[in-house]
Amino acid sequence: MTEEPSAAQRPTLEAVAARAGVSRATVSRVVNGGPGVREELADKVRHAVDELGYVPNHAARSLVTRRHDAIAVVIAESETRVFADPFFALQLRGISRELTAHDVQLVLLLTEGRDDHERVGRYLSGGHVDGALVFSLHLDDPLPGIIRRAGLPTVFGGRPGWQDADAGERSAPYVDCDNRGGAREAVRHLVGLGRRRIAHITGALDQTSAVDRLDGFRDALADAGPHLIEEGDFTFAGGERAMRRLLDAEPELDAVFAANDLSASGALRVLRERGRSVPDDVAVVGFDDMLLVAEQTEPPLTTVRQDIEEMGRLMARMLLRDRSGEGLAAGPSSVVLPTALVRRASA
Amino acid sequence: MTEEPSAAQRPTLEAVAARAGVSRATVSRVVNGGPGVREELADKVRHAVDELGYVPNHAARSLVTRRHDAIAVVIAESETRVFADPFFALQLRGISRELTAHDVQLVLLLTEGRDDHERVGRYLSGGHVDGALVFSLHLDDPLPGIIRRAGLPTVFGGRPGWQDADAGERSAPYVDCDNRGGAREAVRHLVGLGRRRIAHITGALDQTSAVDRLDGFRDALADAGPHLIEEGDFTFAGGERAMRRLLDAEPELDAVFAANDLSASGALRVLRERGRSVPDDVAVVGFDDMLLVAEQTEPPLTTVRQDIEEMGRLMARMLLRDRSGEGLAAGPSSVVLPTALVRRASA
Repeated sequence: MTEEPSAAQRPTLEAVAARAGVSRATVSRVVNGGPGVREELADKVRHAVDELGYVPNHAARSLVTRRHDAIAVVIAESETRVFADPFFALQLRGISRELTAHDVQLVLLLTEGRDDHERVGRYLSGGHVDGALVFSLHLDDPLPGIIRRAGLPTVFGGRPGWQDADAGERSAPYVDCDNRGGAREAVRHLVGLGRRRIAHITGALDQTSAVDRLDGFRDALADAGPHLIEEGDFTFAGGERAMRRLLDAEPELDAVFAANDLSASGALRVLRERGRSVPDDVAVVGFDDMLLVAEQTEPPLTTVRQDIEEMGRLMARMLLRDRSGEGLAAGPSSVVLPTALVRRASA
Repeated sequence: MTEEPSAAQRPTLEAVAARAGVSRATVSRVVNGGPGVREELADKVRHAVDELGYVPNHAARSLVTRRHDAIAVVIAESETRVFADPFFALQLRGISRELTAHDVQLVLLLTEGRDDHERVGRYLSGGHVDGALVFSLHLDDPLPGIIRRAGLPTVFGGRPGWQDADAGERSAPYVDCDNRGGAREAVRHLVGLGRRRIAHITGALDQTSAVDRLDGFRDALADAGPHLIEEGDFTFAGGERAMRRLLDAEPELDAVFAANDLSASGALRVLRERGRSVPDDVAVVGFDDMLLVAEQTEPPLTTVRQDIEEMGRLMARMLLRDRSGEGLAAGPSSVVLPTALVRRASA
């Protein structure tokens, strides 16, 4: 008990008590400023605290409570998109539950579009929140720079698109799923079903998640012609548009991997309109496994599951750890969660 | 130009210039603290300012800019509900557009439930926002008291449920639609179609909108037995549950008025399950006319239209007017918008 703690261990109240040769209660009273401790004992405790480099929990706590007990969530999309795509609701639910468990207020900063990002930056640097969770970044988005200037601890949802996001000065902690691996598995599943003309409806290609899923598609299917890749934007309408173009360009296609469930739903509608039976004529695989989408499509959607709510929870947890003084350095700087193929009727 | 302004007119910069016998530019420099004005002239200007009771625009502006250029939106529901019900998305869109037009940040305070309302209150009174828009209040909600103590200008979405909400000390400015009149029209439409056993699925009866719609139902149908009224909660699942109970209690019912589109959708699903044809066996009317709900039900839903987005815009406008010093007293303290029956296939 009186050993020097290793670098990885934070010294405990018990260690201080042992070092000072007093009870745990005495240490607690001294550290928390309670009465009734003889000055001599108090001195011993303070000495042990200094020797061990003990940081009392309440100090970490007061560091917190002197702040705002509020965390901003910034979604780099118009509020119209935010409310139309259940992805954001799920991620917010994860974040909200984690913050609520720590009695920290979730402050969602809504924007109409990127013209409003300067104003978001002013709010972030105005001393209203202790940190920021930022998701759905686009490649040329000014938001990361604005947030960096605001000097707030930040965790990103999804790998940021700039170079060196993983290491070095411009590295940023993020939570993501294995977009590339998940896409690879989806396409290999289609190949395994004997499909030979497999198309891909991409997401918004100014987002790393869409680029990574496209890379996974290419990994699994090196010889897909360019006419079998059609750009979408993660929306239902984008999925419809892309599916129409794909059918016009390649009427014989027998499978589609869509970059998310919403665009897969749009593709399903167009396939139905064009008289294609799913999965007999065309097999369809999505990405996300969003409850209200994937299970309610006709037919139910085979898709790549990512745990969106858990990603939200992890983002919040990483940021709270930073805020509590434990520092992002205390844990892994970024987390990439595995995905899993969920097989339903569409493929 | 040198006349005393009437009470209704705010004295202008020009009036001050004329009174002081100096140029507009000189007044501007004195008022804005610019250099290069002889002390003698500056004295004349200050004198004229005092005489006329002139309030420079920039003072009104700095009153604003010394604030936070941010408005909180508080929805007294769990974030799960907020994201599941497009009503909130529409109202937020109206609010967001109005605030963005004034370069004011929308700060959405998410809560998991009413246990979190004290924390919301702390954020509101913490000097982070200039005012609050509050909606979806429930009757016994502590939130209004918390917000009153925070001392912030507030506009409510939906008539608050306490007595004297319309006048007197506890009155509160709100925006609502004519819930009672709209419900009355819906039920009269069903009566006009020859329906005789008309049931009602209520909303959450701790909200004034649900109570008012129930009153409208009763206005139009004084003789409906109690077994033809079933409590819902404005959700899809609540609509399903209520519809099952209604069919069990009164298998011969030939029409349903549901308190909103979501619960009407739930009722439609149960009617389909039970083999009832809509509208032939049972006519169904909803309330809201939410694009993504009412038009996509099977069959499309006859419903009472309220302009939800406009209600959001009006709430924001009323609050900004208060904040700009024009005061809520300058306009009507509350606004009740009309509704309109939209006839589709379900009734």
